[in-house]
Formats: sequence, structure tokens, C-alpha cells
Amino acid sequence: MMCRFRVVSKYLIASKTPKMNTFARMSTYPPPARLLQPMVIPPRQLFGPGPSNMRDVVANTQSMSLLGHLHPEFINVMSEVREGLQYIFKTHNTYTFAVSGTGHAGMECAIVNLLEKDDVFLVVDIGIWGKRAADLGTRIGATVHTVTAPHGCAVENDVIKEALNKYKPSVLFVCHGESSTGVKQPLEGLAEVCSHYGTLLLVDTVASLGGAEFRMDEWGVDCVYSATQKVLNAPPGLAPISFSDKAIHKIKNRKVRVPTFYFDVMELGNYWGCDDQPIRYHHTAPISCVYALRSALAVIANEGIDESVCRHEDNAKFLYQKLQEVGLQCFVEHEKWRLPCLTTVKVPDGVDWKGVIEEMMKRGTEIAGGLGPTVGKLWRIGTFGCNSDKQKIEKVVTLLAETIAKKSNL
Amino acid sequence: MMCRFRVVSKYLIASKTPKMNTFARMSTYPPPARLLQPMVIPPRQLFGPGPSNMRDVVANTQSMSLLGHLHPEFINVMSEVREGLQYIFKTHNTYTFAVSGTGHAGMECAIVNLLEKDDVFLVVDIGIWGKRAADLGTRIGATVHTVTAPHGCAVENDVIKEALNKYKPSVLFVCHGESSTGVKQPLEGLAEVCSHYGTLLLVDTVASLGGAEFRMDEWGVDCVYSATQKVLNAPPGLAPISFSDKAIHKIKNRKVRVPTFYFDVMELGNYWGCDDQPIRYHHTAPISCVYALRSALAVIANEGIDESVCRHEDNAKFLYQKLQEVGLQCFVEHEKWRLPCLTTVKVPDGVDWKGVIEEMMKRGTEIAGGLGPTVGKLWRIGTFGCNSDKQKIEKVVTLLAETIAKKSNL
Repeated sequence: MMCRFRVVSKYLIASKTPKMNTFARMSTYPPPARLLQPMVIPPRQLFGPGPSNMRDVVANTQSMSLLGHLHPEFINVMSEVREGLQYIFKTHNTYTFAVSGTGHAGMECAIVNLLEKDDVFLVVDIGIWGKRAADLGTRIGATVHTVTAPHGCAVENDVIKEALNKYKPSVLFVCHGESSTGVKQPLEGLAEVCSHYGTLLLVDTVASLGGAEFRMDEWGVDCVYSATQKVLNAPPGLAPISFSDKAIHKIKNRKVRVPTFYFDVMELGNYWGCDDQPIRYHHTAPISCVYALRSALAVIANEGIDESVCRHEDNAKFLYQKLQEVGLQCFVEHEKWRLPCLTTVKVPDGVDWKGVIEEMMKRGTEIAGGLGPTVGKLWRIGTFGCNSDKQKIEKVVTLLAETIAKKSNL
Repeated sequence: MMCRFRVVSKYLIASKTPKMNTFARMSTYPPPARLLQPMVIPPRQLFGPGPSNMRDVVANTQSMSLLGHLHPEFINVMSEVREGLQYIFKTHNTYTFAVSGTGHAGMECAIVNLLEKDDVFLVVDIGIWGKRAADLGTRIGATVHTVTAPHGCAVENDVIKEALNKYKPSVLFVCHGESSTGVKQPLEGLAEVCSHYGTLLLVDTVASLGGAEFRMDEWGVDCVYSATQKVLNAPPGLAPISFSDKAIHKIKNRKVRVPTFYFDVMELGNYWGCDDQPIRYHHTAPISCVYALRSALAVIANEGIDESVCRHEDNAKFLYQKLQEVGLQCFVEHEKWRLPCLTTVKVPDGVDWKGVIEEMMKRGTEIAGGLGPTVGKLWRIGTFGCNSDKQKIEKVVTLLAETIAKKSNL
């Protein structure tokens, strides 16, 4: 039992030394000293655009012992997750599961499967997510068109309909909750027009699901994806997704194979038990993340998805009122366009917006600045899931007002 | 403060009912009853091909409270993870980080960035992973060639060298630890020949890293990826990866943009602090998984990477001996080709291989059958990280022998 090389003692940290001695080899890769120190994670109230705080029940689920990715008990958990996702998306779609990656993996999975080279792709661009979708469309060789609105506004349905008529795209992308501006883009009525042109309606609900009303089947959405670290209060790591039969039909009839294996919907769907074939190994699911998602879905099933949405809407109004009381204005002027779980606040003139964020962070509370083109113009206050709570909201607004007073040049 | 729709009481589970009453809307998506039951996860000894058991310290890390994906404390954890990965890969490569997906996401990230349409791709196919790499190469339009060996064997270096000479590929794929057969493919000496043809050497170490010797820089490897749920004993969810300067040069000089945003190495590298630009938001990292990986890397840094490899080699020999004592034979005949952390065992004639696995599982211990073409021919016993332990190995072999006696038709 001899090892093939000798370990040079200067890098030995552990006391147990394996028995070994054949030839010496000098390691030039010492163990990093920093790793040998304990990891320090300060507790923080996460009122930014996500991740939000985990509930204790979800956090504890993460420490549960692992199962294999094909063990019957784990397949059962996956099946419960699928049912929970159908419940929160309000869909009966068979192809409803979670992609093994964070929110953007959902966008990638949707677009890469639905679009082919030279397809026409119409993007409603009201912030950063539309730009990302357009970028990805370009990368895979689609012809991309966009319709836009000023920051803080949604695109009016008529404008989208006109563009659908003009471009007759294969796929229309809409971001339901634009987290860079706090805008909720209305979706009702789009499906009928899409249907007329054979266009698939693809919706990003990363920042909205569970916090704003969403009805996949009733609204005729063909593909939706979301994330776990917003309203669901689970850790990031999975992207819930669902495809309508029409979307699956298009994917099954692609001209060329999907240029990815990891995000191949037909393969993923089989692994998640969405087709009628025996389950095949596709990849190793992030077991702990699936446990956590299952646990988070149980919380929302217990509250009720409609009740969750109502609570977010109700508390958003409370937040608007509190902001007004301290003299702050919402960035999104039309209340119908405000995303109930993520509120954007205008930075008053003469206030050091970054200094405010940093100071609040020092005091244990995160709010965020703008993203992309909205940097410096606004703050973003996320009230996702357990953080959509009047007491917590009151504390955040009080702290924000205090900090603004401190960081104001006026 | 009124909600826009009324929740129909038959689906109310929680006692708290939000105040709301404008119009009623019947939900046809009731909360799934199964989700309202507690989740039951049986404890299991994971001696299959992965995931392996988490150490308690790693499992507990997963429950730590979340930080934002751009909070300085989290960026610091990411930086510690990078150092830990450089340490275990034995590399000084700047572009060393973890892809936010499980093992296969590492393969996808490597191949999609390194290969372009019409590039020549040479794959060493000794089981399932070479086939996957070849499939992915085909999907993105590369010209794929393979060299193979009978199952249970590695491809001899001379055969690979001949193929390099014949095809002069852009990229050579080699799976270091072929988990479907338990074969370790030797890597030494390949880089020189690759270098001669301007070929990039890409290595899969998902099942081998930390359990078999690997020296990225010394062996001239241009890209390597791995997974967290094998020797590292962390939960699945991240794919450690590293790119040499030569690999990054090729990526920077691609003819067309990478057809993915989620796996775009230049974007990922920036987010992980690998370039000299300010860190930009790219995606939300799976925070808890990064904590767990950091914690798992601390364990291996504490033991020493060389010591870890030696322990796996030493305990593998112990396993071979114990198997022999109960009359079982290793599937890989040449000991030099055996992967120290995953041992394949021939299924004796007349034994119900599947029944053995199921019976052992009932008794709380997982071993696995073959994968793809090796199904029915062998069992796979993974001894990863904390499961590479003589006492545990002795117990598994004893249980296996007992179960075979029970499930034998002879």
C-alpha cells in the first residue's frame, strides 16, 4: 500500500499523514491560507431585488442528507415540485419542471429551445431583461426586433400588437416583472394576437411570480420561467419553467437539434417525468436546491398562491403610503404598472444614492440601486415572500429616511 | 387596500385570509395535497457514482443565511473558492471558477466556448462521457472524430497520438475518470503532442478530482472541469472549471460569439473576478452551493490534495483486496487503469444484479449498476471523499457479499 509520490511536509496541515514513499514531488500549490479560516457570513435583511431571505424551514431543508438523483424518494420529491410549480404557474402543462441553474438559465433554456437560427424574434424591451433576451437571440442567429418604452413605463398592448403584425415573429418575449425599473408589463390579451400570427408567447416571471397575478393557461402563455430566490424565498439555484403543448410541438419539430444538451427540453422533460417514457439519467440535479424548492412551494401552497399575490399587492400599497409619508416618490408613476414585490424609488436631488445603500448595508439592511440604465436614478426595494410584511416594511422605510437625511447634501 | 379578486374558500389552507373582495374568480388550480405533507428523506450511505454523502460541516454551511450575489462578503467567498479550486486543480490559471450548474454544465461551458461550428473535435470515447462530448460537438456543428477502447480499458497514448496526427483537431476531449466503467485514462504526455498540432487539451475530471492524481499546469491541460458531489462531498450544483491562457486566447478570438450567455466564459470570468475589470452582474450565483463548495474546499485544503489522492489510492487497494476475499473481481483488469475513487465489480454469473442493488438500498446503502453499455455487467462502488474509509469499505463489501448470496440463482 504505497502511494506514488511523497507529500512535502511544509504543506501538511492535517496531522494524519498517509503511508507513502516512492519519490518526492515538490508541490508548488500550497493550500490557500484563507480557506483554513472559518467562513463568516453576516446576517442581513435582504430588501434588494433578490435573493431574498430564506425562511428557516427552507434553510433547514438544505442541510438534509443527500439522496441520489435517481433514487425513488428523490424522483418523488421532483414530482411534488412539478405539481407545486403547476400550481403557482396556474397551468396543467405536462412540461413543467425546474432547470438546474439560476434564473438566467431559465431564459437560456426557453430561448435556445424555442428559437432557431433565422427565426424572427420580437422582444418587448423595458429594461435589462429584454436586452438580455435580444442579445441571446442574436447569439443564436435569430433576427431580432424590439419594441420599447421609456424607463418606468410598460409598452402599451397596441404597440406590441402593431409590432406583431409588422414582424410576424416566431416568438414574442415579454418580461412580466422588469426588476431594473420596477415595472409590471401587462400580459392580458397578448395571446390572442400571438395566436393569430402563430407566435409563441414567452414570459419572464423571475421577479413577479407569486407577487403579481399570473395565469399561464388562462392568459395563453406558451413558455414561462422564473427563479427561486425572489417571492419563493428559496436559495438561488433552480429556474422553474413550463412549456405549453404548442411550444413543445415547435421544439419537437425543430429543423436542427438544440445546440445544447444541458438545456435540451426534451431530455430535461424526460428526467423530470414529463413524458411517458421511463426516466433516463440526464444530469445530476442539485439535490439540496430541489429539497429547498419543494419546501418553499409547500409554504406557498399552504398560504395559497392567490393569497400570496394579494398580500404582496396589499403590502406594496402600504409601502407606497409609507414612502409618501417620508417624502419619497415611486419611480413608476402609473400604479397599474408597478410590480407589487419590487418597488423603485426616485433618488431625491442632492442625495448620495450609493452612500445611502452602503450606510444601510452597514446597519444590516440591503436595498439596491438601479441596474443598467437606471443606475443612480432610483433605489430598488424588494418585498419578496416573507419580506412582504408591514412591520418589516415600516422598519426599512424608517431606516431609509434616516439614512437619506444623513447622506443628503441639501 | 383591496385585492382585485376573491379567493375561493375551498382552497384556503392557511387560516390567515387577506382582506379582499372585488370579484370572485374560481381557481382551478388547487394546492397539491402532497406538498402539504412533510418531506421525508431517508438517511442513506451513498456508495454509488455520486452524489456522495455530505460531511456535516458542509451540510450545515448550506443553511447559513443568504447574502446578495454582489455583496462584498460574498465576493470574498467566491475569491476563496477560486483559490481553493486553483489548489485542487494544481494550476495558476486566472480563469478558474465554478459554473452555476451541475457537472454536465462544466462540459457544456467548456465545449461551447472552445469549439466553433466546423472546428475539428477529437474525442477519446471510453464510456458514456466521451459520447456526450461527441454529441454536444455535433449539436454545435463541429466535425467530430472519436477513438475508442473496449469497455474497461483506457485508450493507449499511441492511439491518441496517431489520431491527433491524422485529424489535427482544434480540441481533444479526454475523460480522466470514466464513471461508467471505472477506468482512469492516463493524461501524461498528451499535451506535448496536442501542442504540436495547436490542439487544446480538454479534460473531464468530474469523477476523478481529488481521488486520482491530476496536475493541470504540469500536464499542460488547457481546460478542465469537475463537479462538487464526488470527492468534494459537497451537494451537486456547481461545476469547477479552469482555462489556460491558450484556451482563453482561442475563446477571445472566436469567429462568432459564443451561442450562450449563461455559459459565456468571458462574462462568467468577469463575475468571478478573473479579469482586471470591475465585477459586473452576470447572473445570481447559487449562494448556498458556493458556501458549501467553499466549506468542502476547506476540508480538502486541511487534509492536503496530495494526501487526499493518496488516501483514495490506498483505500482503493484495500477495497480490491476485500473484494477478492469474497470472491469478486474488478471489471477493470489492469490496475494502472483503475479509478481509485470509483471501482467497478463484475457481476458474477447467475446473480440478479438489480435485485442486489435494490436489497442493499433497502438496507440503507447505495451501490449502482452500470451506465449505458455497461448495464447488467457490473456494479459501481464509489468511495468518494469521506466515504474513502477502510471501516466503511469493509461494511459495504460485507453487505454486498451477503446480498449476493441471497440474490444468487446458483
